[in-house]
Amino acid sequence: MSELRKDPISGRWVIITTERQKRPSDFRIEPTEQTPVDFCPFCGGSEDKTPREVLAYRQNGGPPNSPGWDVRVVPNRVPALQVEGTVERHGDGIFDRMSGIGAHEVIIETPDHMQTLATLPEAAIAKVLWAFRERVVDLKQDRRFQYILAFKNHGAAAGAALDHSHSQLIALPIVPRHVREEVDGSRQHYQIKERCVFCDIIDQELRDDERVITESRGYIAVAPYAPRFPFETWVLPRRHRAFFEDAPREEFDGLSHIVKTVLQRMNKALLRPPYNLVIHSSPFYEQTGAFYHWHVEIMPVLTKVAGFERGTGFYVNPVAPEEAAKVLRETRI
Amino acid sequence: MSELRKDPISGRWVIITTERQKRPSDFRIEPTEQTPVDFCPFCGGSEDKTPREVLAYRQNGGPPNSPGWDVRVVPNRVPALQVEGTVERHGDGIFDRMSGIGAHEVIIETPDHMQTLATLPEAAIAKVLWAFRERVVDLKQDRRFQYILAFKNHGAAAGAALDHSHSQLIALPIVPRHVREEVDGSRQHYQIKERCVFCDIIDQELRDDERVITESRGYIAVAPYAPRFPFETWVLPRRHRAFFEDAPREEFDGLSHIVKTVLQRMNKALLRPPYNLVIHSSPFYEQTGAFYHWHVEIMPVLTKVAGFERGTGFYVNPVAPEEAAKVLRETRI
Repeated sequence: MSELRKDPISGRWVIITTERQKRPSDFRIEPTEQTPVDFCPFCGGSEDKTPREVLAYRQNGGPPNSPGWDVRVVPNRVPALQVEGTVERHGDGIFDRMSGIGAHEVIIETPDHMQTLATLPEAAIAKVLWAFRERVVDLKQDRRFQYILAFKNHGAAAGAALDHSHSQLIALPIVPRHVREEVDGSRQHYQIKERCVFCDIIDQELRDDERVITESRGYIAVAPYAPRFPFETWVLPRRHRAFFEDAPREEFDGLSHIVKTVLQRMNKALLRPPYNLVIHSSPFYEQTGAFYHWHVEIMPVLTKVAGFERGTGFYVNPVAPEEAAKVLRETRI
Repeated sequence: MSELRKDPISGRWVIITTERQKRPSDFRIEPTEQTPVDFCPFCGGSEDKTPREVLAYRQNGGPPNSPGWDVRVVPNRVPALQVEGTVERHGDGIFDRMSGIGAHEVIIETPDHMQTLATLPEAAIAKVLWAFRERVVDLKQDRRFQYILAFKNHGAAAGAALDHSHSQLIALPIVPRHVREEVDGSRQHYQIKERCVFCDIIDQELRDDERVITESRGYIAVAPYAPRFPFETWVLPRRHRAFFEDAPREEFDGLSHIVKTVLQRMNKALLRPPYNLVIHSSPFYEQTGAFYHWHVEIMPVLTKVAGFERGTGFYVNPVAPEEAAKVLRETRI
């Protein structure tokens, strides 16, 4: 029997099919590959081929835009939004528009073209995540922004334009849809229960022990109860906090450990799949402290396209999360 | 300058980029192709290779499941939902699930493997759309269903598993997300304005004349003001009606004419792109008559993947709808 399941945060229903139940080997995955190239603007030594850096971690004490960095953040060369200007709102009959003000930055995760987020040492992953945090803290001072999206597209099928391992930040004058749904849904839960719905989920997942993939100091990785995508994985901090950027430095070790573990297991079980990784954190100017709970969502791209799901927001998932969790839990790396 | 635009129905913001502005030739489209095959279960003569038909139009008066049909509807061989059983709701701690009750049918649009919805004569397209309607009217009698999704995936990149031209129907015990957003958004508009937001859009689009692609008897095809996807196109009936299935037979000629025109122009301008087509109609058991307005959404698949958009519900579109409408308006077929 297929099943309809409801995500307790957003209220979104998904179909988990059983007739069409799939194992990892049933997917025609396009394995991602780091291929050596003659020239790459993100490689160490190409610092003058990118816009000037806004942040970098160097152990050699070298000057900005020189080699020797571990992580480097630069403005996107073709930004989706412009950083200069004021947020102007205009009506156009019944339509509404706003000037495309925002920031769009690229986090180059390593100078080495052959590394990926999954293969980097944990300490290096922690630096990448800390760079996210530092940029969020800095951009947040700009009162034009309501939200900062931190995300990673790995592999062409996941939307990555360049092979070299990188993530992106987009600072926005609005709150993106899914975050809005999560905030509204978790507020509703709080109004009824006076508890955080994410904390409730963590409690139940640990008790049920059916969808837990792995744990690390302070974090739990689960296949969510109503996943949209096969092998969708959420990394939840056990400590309740609305804002990612409020997590102190010592909590980044557990985070980098669990992110590396999940990515390595996906690489092994699903043959280096393309994936999207998104950090969901609270919008800046809302009183979400009691009920919103930041987290990381990792979505491998296993099916060729979301199909009609694009037009309906309605997802059919051929892998039950209990199955996905079992596969990833039992994968030895 | 990039721009943020808000869809007046759902309230969703999208980024329309200009720095990244793209023309049709900038997309690496996978052109769809009808390739002759030795065997196809949807071809005329293979009637015994599908589940038994639930509806067919035959001009030769032949018996069910015999050759000679124009349009044929059969249950999906691997349904996403089961038709037998009762809708049972269960709680599982804080989680909610429902038995996967529903119907999943396939509309085979032509017995000819080499035809597509765009190449069929208008009268044949009208029969396909009428078959949709007949199935909706029939399935709607089943009080377990809240909604029926009618959609088409054309081309592998759009999620089609078989080349042979076909559409699908899924009857659901819930209302899909995007339809829910549209219903709630148009109700809100009605509460303030006492008018249908779709009717307001039609009025303004005809007045602005910047995003209109084409018109036919009773219908208008527009590039919506805040499209998620490049060349996304909506076909709106000028006559206000909440339910697709309430449109009388004579309104199906104008509909098939405009759908064919849009698909042919997309084929010409965008090189036979893969696409998804979805009919949005009112949920069955809500008082939507005054404010909801059924319509058709056609979304070519031009970008390789929605990227991080999957994880955020936030879309970046590199083609302004005014540009898309201009291209499709000026395409000669």
